[in-house]
Amino acid sequence: MTSPSAIQDSYPYPNEPIWSKSEKTIARKAIDAALGRELHEVIQEAKKMASQIQHSSDLWDLEHYLTERRKDINRKYDYRYSQLMHVFGRLLYERRLREEELRGLREDKLKPIRSFAQFLRDEAA
Amino acid sequence: MTSPSAIQDSYPYPNEPIWSKSEKTIARKAIDAALGRELHEVIQEAKKMASQIQHSSDLWDLEHYLTERRKDINRKYDYRYSQLMHVFGRLLYERRLREEELRGLREDKLKPIRSFAQFLRDEAA
Repeated sequence: MTSPSAIQDSYPYPNEPIWSKSEKTIARKAIDAALGRELHEVIQEAKKMASQIQHSSDLWDLEHYLTERRKDINRKYDYRYSQLMHVFGRLLYERRLREEELRGLREDKLKPIRSFAQFLRDEAA
Repeated sequence: MTSPSAIQDSYPYPNEPIWSKSEKTIARKAIDAALGRELHEVIQEAKKMASQIQHSSDLWDLEHYLTERRKDINRKYDYRYSQLMHVFGRLLYERRLREEELRGLREDKLKPIRSFAQFLRDEAA
């Protein structure tokens, strides 16, 4: 991995908080849970759309929906530690994650996560 | 339309047979019928695949299937008169069209259509 963003995962990195082993476990569990819920939603929606297909335009609407959801999910669920605070902030903002699921993370993670969620709320308001 | 293939639709074009008005009507009806049948097949298959989705991999398999079918259908159903004999030859070869549906086309069309279908059969054998 030689891309600039991949390099950010190398420690020590200026201003990047260190994730302890237990925090990594909590983070992995939380992101997996949110991803599982979002995939479940997409599966239910795809089944519903497919069951209602009547014309070829409905078929290509389903394809377009799946392509967009796949791209969005790939962008959103970024497991790199350097990205996790943005990821969790967005998931909180989208109500795909409850703050309780992040219990055990230290305040140097929780504070920027909450702050990013609030930024997204303000931006959308 | 300035692409080289579009220019081929201009008459007179060396070695291109002329399509009469009644032949154009027959051709349009035949290609529309084959396209309608193929789209119906894809719709049925998509509904079946969607109903069987269990994991996210099944979801992206459905997306991939739809993308490939859309590209293949766009390539195959080429309504330009300069391409129709290849189109019909392929549809005969794929058994998506019966030769009776081309009844009324003149022999200068039917002969190359049959010949291309036979070429595809030989190639696949």
